[in-house]
Amino acid sequence: MFESADKIETLIEAMPYIRKYQNKTVVIKYGGHAMVNEELKKKVAQDIAFLQFSGLRPVVVHGGGPEITDMLKKVGKKSEFVNGLRVTDGETVDIAQMVLVGRINTEVTATINMFGGKAIGLNGKDASLLRAEKVLSEVKENGVTKEVDIGFVGAVTAVNAHLLNSLLDNDYIPIIAPIGVGENGETFNINADTVAGEIAAALHAEKLIMLTDVKGIFEDYKNPDTFISTLTFDKAYEMMMKGTIDGGMIPKVQACIHALNHMTSKAHIIDGRTPHSILMEIFTDRGSGTMVAK
Amino acid sequence: MFESADKIETLIEAMPYIRKYQNKTVVIKYGGHAMVNEELKKKVAQDIAFLQFSGLRPVVVHGGGPEITDMLKKVGKKSEFVNGLRVTDGETVDIAQMVLVGRINTEVTATINMFGGKAIGLNGKDASLLRAEKVLSEVKENGVTKEVDIGFVGAVTAVNAHLLNSLLDNDYIPIIAPIGVGENGETFNINADTVAGEIAAALHAEKLIMLTDVKGIFEDYKNPDTFISTLTFDKAYEMMMKGTIDGGMIPKVQACIHALNHMTSKAHIIDGRTPHSILMEIFTDRGSGTMVAK
Amino acid sequence: MFESADKIETLIEAMPYIRKYQNKTVVIKYGGHAMVNEELKKKVAQDIAFLQFSGLRPVVVHGGGPEITDMLKKVGKKSEFVNGLRVTDGETVDIAQMVLVGRINTEVTATINMFGGKAIGLNGKDASLLRAEKVLSEVKENGVTKEVDIGFVGAVTAVNAHLLNSLLDNDYIPIIAPIGVGENGETFNINADTVAGEIAAALHAEKLIMLTDVKGIFEDYKNPDTFISTLTFDKAYEMMMKGTIDGGMIPKVQACIHALNHMTSKAHIIDGRTPHSILMEIFTDRGSGTMVAK
Amino acid sequence: MFESADKIETLIEAMPYIRKYQNKTVVIKYGGHAMVNEELKKKVAQDIAFLQFSGLRPVVVHGGGPEITDMLKKVGKKSEFVNGLRVTDGETVDIAQMVLVGRINTEVTATINMFGGKAIGLNGKDASLLRAEKVLSEVKENGVTKEVDIGFVGAVTAVNAHLLNSLLDNDYIPIIAPIGVGENGETFNINADTVAGEIAAALHAEKLIMLTDVKGIFEDYKNPDTFISTLTFDKAYEMMMKGTIDGGMIPKVQACIHALNHMTSKAHIIDGRTPHSILMEIFTDRGSGTMVAK
Amino acid sequence: MFESADKIETLIEAMPYIRKYQNKTVVIKYGGHAMVNEELKKKVAQDIAFLQFSGLRPVVVHGGGPEITDMLKKVGKKSEFVNGLRVTDGETVDIAQMVLVGRINTEVTATINMFGGKAIGLNGKDASLLRAEKVLSEVKENGVTKEVDIGFVGAVTAVNAHLLNSLLDNDYIPIIAPIGVGENGETFNINADTVAGEIAAALHAEKLIMLTDVKGIFEDYKNPDTFISTLTFDKAYEMMMKGTIDGGMIPKVQACIHALNHMTSKAHIIDGRTPHSILMEIFTDRGSGTMVAK
Amino acid sequence: MFESADKIETLIEAMPYIRKYQNKTVVIKYGGHAMVNEELKKKVAQDIAFLQFSGLRPVVVHGGGPEITDMLKKVGKKSEFVNGLRVTDGETVDIAQMVLVGRINTEVTATINMFGGKAIGLNGKDASLLRAEKVLSEVKENGVTKEVDIGFVGAVTAVNAHLLNSLLDNDYIPIIAPIGVGENGETFNINADTVAGEIAAALHAEKLIMLTDVKGIFEDYKNPDTFISTLTFDKAYEMMMKGTIDGGMIPKVQACIHALNHMTSKAHIIDGRTPHSILMEIFTDRGSGTMVAK
Repeated sequence: MFESADKIETLIEAMPYIRKYQNKTVVIKYGGHAMVNEELKKKVAQDIAFLQFSGLRPVVVHGGGPEITDMLKKVGKKSEFVNGLRVTDGETVDIAQMVLVGRINTEVTATINMFGGKAIGLNGKDASLLRAEKVLSEVKENGVTKEVDIGFVGAVTAVNAHLLNSLLDNDYIPIIAPIGVGENGETFNINADTVAGEIAAALHAEKLIMLTDVKGIFEDYKNPDTFISTLTFDKAYEMMMKGTIDGGMIPKVQACIHALNHMTSKAHIIDGRTPHSILMEIFTDRGSGTMVAK
Repeated sequence: MFESADKIETLIEAMPYIRKYQNKTVVIKYGGHAMVNEELKKKVAQDIAFLQFSGLRPVVVHGGGPEITDMLKKVGKKSEFVNGLRVTDGETVDIAQMVLVGRINTEVTATINMFGGKAIGLNGKDASLLRAEKVLSEVKENGVTKEVDIGFVGAVTAVNAHLLNSLLDNDYIPIIAPIGVGENGETFNINADTVAGEIAAALHAEKLIMLTDVKGIFEDYKNPDTFISTLTFDKAYEMMMKGTIDGGMIPKVQACIHALNHMTSKAHIIDGRTPHSILMEIFTDRGSGTMVAK
Repeated sequence: MFESADKIETLIEAMPYIRKYQNKTVVIKYGGHAMVNEELKKKVAQDIAFLQFSGLRPVVVHGGGPEITDMLKKVGKKSEFVNGLRVTDGETVDIAQMVLVGRINTEVTATINMFGGKAIGLNGKDASLLRAEKVLSEVKENGVTKEVDIGFVGAVTAVNAHLLNSLLDNDYIPIIAPIGVGENGETFNINADTVAGEIAAALHAEKLIMLTDVKGIFEDYKNPDTFISTLTFDKAYEMMMKGTIDGGMIPKVQACIHALNHMTSKAHIIDGRTPHSILMEIFTDRGSGTMVAK
Repeated sequence: MFESADKIETLIEAMPYIRKYQNKTVVIKYGGHAMVNEELKKKVAQDIAFLQFSGLRPVVVHGGGPEITDMLKKVGKKSEFVNGLRVTDGETVDIAQMVLVGRINTEVTATINMFGGKAIGLNGKDASLLRAEKVLSEVKENGVTKEVDIGFVGAVTAVNAHLLNSLLDNDYIPIIAPIGVGENGETFNINADTVAGEIAAALHAEKLIMLTDVKGIFEDYKNPDTFISTLTFDKAYEMMMKGTIDGGMIPKVQACIHALNHMTSKAHIIDGRTPHSILMEIFTDRGSGTMVAK
Repeated sequence: MFESADKIETLIEAMPYIRKYQNKTVVIKYGGHAMVNEELKKKVAQDIAFLQFSGLRPVVVHGGGPEITDMLKKVGKKSEFVNGLRVTDGETVDIAQMVLVGRINTEVTATINMFGGKAIGLNGKDASLLRAEKVLSEVKENGVTKEVDIGFVGAVTAVNAHLLNSLLDNDYIPIIAPIGVGENGETFNINADTVAGEIAAALHAEKLIMLTDVKGIFEDYKNPDTFISTLTFDKAYEMMMKGTIDGGMIPKVQACIHALNHMTSKAHIIDGRTPHSILMEIFTDRGSGTMVAK
Repeated sequence: MFESADKIETLIEAMPYIRKYQNKTVVIKYGGHAMVNEELKKKVAQDIAFLQFSGLRPVVVHGGGPEITDMLKKVGKKSEFVNGLRVTDGETVDIAQMVLVGRINTEVTATINMFGGKAIGLNGKDASLLRAEKVLSEVKENGVTKEVDIGFVGAVTAVNAHLLNSLLDNDYIPIIAPIGVGENGETFNINADTVAGEIAAALHAEKLIMLTDVKGIFEDYKNPDTFISTLTFDKAYEMMMKGTIDGGMIPKVQACIHALNHMTSKAHIIDGRTPHSILMEIFTDRGSGTMVAK
């Protein structure tokens, strides 16, 4: 295999990058298309296993994808809506947890292990990894913003960094489902981007990488020439105000900002549809997507 | 609270038992009625947290209970049968895993943590904790025993004792769902009693406690006077041959025998319907159910 | 034994207290009636062994009781008095050391070990645990206060906290006789209450518990309604000035104040005549005697 | 001080011996004249502190000397005799313990610490260091040997080597009083030579050194030419049979034999009356007294 | 750089090999052309640094090359010959050591460090890493074999594996010059192949790789079709007898045999003239040169 | 040997000094006559080994002596001079390195090991122990000071204290040749006094001892009555200004000042011609040469 000098030269070229990140913590938000496509799934798993082999400390936070919706349908659960927002009642959060923890998390874990990694699946209830509390959602009704209770949707109040560090020190890769635990043991569904940001912050990670289904952030998504390779905080706030950054991109950008404010060195929003996008991000000097920076 | 001397005397009485088991590993197979009744669930969680506070090293293996069947029904999954045995096809094992890992395991973990324990949920895919391979079932057809493939039902081929010990050394309580991982990453459903026996064997546990829905083993279940407080191997084999021990009791007894053959000191089949049956077993000299012994 | 659910419930009730104090250091001044009565001796030993089993870090400082006086009598040693104070000459301090170290300390140590503890007897000469220097006593003569030399009575100048912590880290219970060592190797008798306060301060203990022969502190000892459950520093100084706190209670209160000034969290003066008074203090929310607080 | 080259050369000469014994355990039985003479006491303490500075692991077992007898006299205790043997009743063993632990042990400990050592006094009750049981003495009456109960005189049944090793690993010098603890907490007086042999055996010491008041062992004590520099086991048994080795020398020789049978490399009976006899023994090639050898 | 998927795929392909050798010790005999050619020098250094980054434990033993001869010439040292063998007198061995340790060893060390490795130069005198004794050479004179003293040429008598393991455990790469130290501190020149074999044996290395200036071993070096990919011990002995393996290849083959006899798993003779021959050997399934096997 | 009480008393006298310096780091600059005279070489090696046996942490930095000049002559290297300063061109620095590392360093290391020490030879290239950069020399030409490039003469820019501490923690004695490594792997010759000062500073050594060929510093070297036993910084600057301290003494004094400014407690300039001058310095209260002090 490695009898051609070219391939060896490629290994050698990787050396400075390995050296740079060895023993450093890298938090990866895993979601979108890369969690659905069978080929991409394998490549992501290979990337993460490779990071571990190279002596980095990867931590993975995954989202839910379309499987939660599928399961809700399957069990005939009708969703209630309040002001256009889906209500996460007790039954819904139970199903979300079941799918996130019992299906997606185990699959991600097992796939990484198939490629030789030493992954361990976790969720916020394990040693109270993610303590959470209810968040209210803001809706505008007749021009007035008011808060509505949409059920078991939570925000992180504390991260058990000790647990993650002790697993990382023993060469395990934590794979985290975004389920939080309330003060009285309640289950909370939490936005996975937000969880990734909180964990990067709590671990003072070297890098936070958010896999998305776009190439990065653009001034104008219709115009490829407006690609933003480095997004400053000021610019980010401005674009969120203006609505250029909106929808699912908002929690991603906010997670990056939160992490960067807590000793994480670098935060990147990259295109998860490209095979091996994680390694590509780490093994280049300039990075492939949009880097968020103070 | 503890102002009455009586209560303090009770603590003092517990001392010799705590002393005896401190730093010892106790594997608990958790299942049956104690997993269904709300009151019992809390008491089991308290018992396990208490063991940890007292310096023991508890490990919990839980079964599935009726929730898997409920979920199969809910999603409209019709079960196939081969010679009277339900076939665990790919969809069934996926649902079993989802319920075991994503619902039951998280609930047991969170309940113990509510009482101050430091529990972590695991399944066989975490760092390949339980490697497994397919088992064929034996059926008798026209007096001839033959093996039939009933799908993703597995037997344990290896236990990652290193992972469990490193968690126990860091004061975590492993809570294990009986899901195994095949050589190619397949999911296998494994009998929880069998898993408990394998884990007790792999950890050289001091004690294996099987929670059941009966008082223990009887020569004749209809005659309470025939209760067997110590069941020897010879007697056990004889009763299994004769069919006095049958059905779900067979894997329980076999798990005890397997564990005892691998350096586990004591194995007990106890009545999980009695509140605090676990502590009662540990804090007595003679034990409450049937002890299996060489 | 633990077949009644009541007893198990009692264990469960103890959990929050064990949790609260686990891995915390508790310094116990052991003296008075509880060192004389055979029944109480055993109960104190059980209490201390129980604390160790439950994962606390108990340290015991004991006093001398009437045994020193008995021995002085036995060997026919006549005591000299200066202004009403007994002079501790060389022979007297030798006998005090012999009784404290060779009789009382070994007995306390052995009794705790009988109940399964891992106690080690120490005195201030062991690895220079308690360095001391002479203290002069103040006497009033004709209305003038002057200092008199009453011999080998010492004050603590340094505590070898390193020794105590290394023993505690290895799960030993230090049992300390209040003998100090001078710069030139001289033996000093030190007030045991004072030693307990110094040790609690040096170890930044969680709790200091002083066993006495009274229920606690009263505004007026003749009136049980005047019991003080929390004694502030200001109140304590006022009462010492007025003489309401006097005699042997003064060093006890001062020891509590000293410890609280050095990171000890709680200090209690409790009734050692009540069986299991130590556990009762730890396993209640409000405490049984007088708590001293800033 | 060390400005003369001679003195430096002396240090240099000591190097091969330090090298040879560094990190090795040396058990010293301290007794006889060297425990009575003030000058010798200091020199023994200096020797032991020097061994510690040089990186050896010294352990000291001391005897009681005449002080126990003095104290018995002082408190007016009359000794009973059975067939010529003094009976160690409860009161006697209490006084023996008090003097051994409370007077001699603390003094030896404090003196070594005065010279910069880090000594810790211990007795058999500390963490049950020396478990013991009653021994009966043999007396000959009318030519018939029979066993008589002479009270609390014990033999070692177990040594807590773990405690000693953990103290030695932390650079402490254990100073051990020959008091044992019975199964029910009883106090036993044990022959100090025997204790030294048991401890050397339990620690697999490199060397056992017995300080005596004679130059070593002679064929005929009246004839200095009959000095035995190496005593074989065979010769030792023969001489004990013949009575040439008798009285207090018997337990010393037996202790050496016991230690040598349990992995101790060398055992020496030396003259404690010579100043610095311990260092002289260690810093010579041939040794100064009688070496016992298989 | 790593923006092409090809390069990333190459990294991924390397994973199974990294996994296989991670935490394993690999001893590399570095010599021949690869020590002379500037390009090859760098590539060898890169290979060794890469092994360290990937979590392997490389150990390098280097030879002397032509530089010793150059230096001898430069200082005008005339070599004596005895029966055709060059005599290594005191001055010669001094110059050999000076060049090996002071020139070649420092250069190899510094070059690896330039590529990010953490190499430390060693020779047999460092903590007596290689103890040695004189070897006599055999010469045939008039058909009679006799031994002649050709000076300070040595054989290894002991390897300080403890030193090497403690450096490897701290992530240092030992770079070893083949100089041994005699009992009286004499300097011995030792064949570097032999040293590599001894070190692989002492460390129970996973792999021994000998860099040579040939493609491997051939039945007949003139006929490329006779290349031997696996050389059994029997075959090796036969070929050495027959003289097909001769000259400098003899110590190489013997070093492999010696290492394989002492728990080293694999030994390879490879072509150091190929760039990155070390990585090529490790990152293939079949190996590139001649493997020696039992 | 140690049968005379005198010798033992000498060991005992050494105790307070051993106690004072145990576990402390002592940096020794080894150079001058003591590196040339065969007798002195051995005594220095004995001194250093003795320090290690006594539990100190010695670190040795050695200079080059006349051997570099000898070797330059031998290989016929003619030195160039610029303004009276010898130019260290590439060939010269290579030879300097070869002699320092390959001859002197190995000899010092081996000699200490002959006396039982555990020395390891190092130079600035080992794990980049001494990073260096070129220094220009100042020359005065026609009354104008200008900087000239005299080749590979370097100044220390960073010391790898981690490497030295990890060797010292494992009881090895680092022996350091004053060779530095540049950013691009260049070899730099560095003044050994300067290196000793930098290393003492980096290790926060307890003591820095500079071996010289004079008794210490004098106001007037011709008048022995003007010996300065304590040299203040102010006095040192004044004397360097005036030229009373000049030539090779300047870097020695500067090294002392540098070390004292970085937490080194004591710095001494002593007479290396006196046998055992190192031990004499350490085993006296007042010191033998000139002490430099703030």
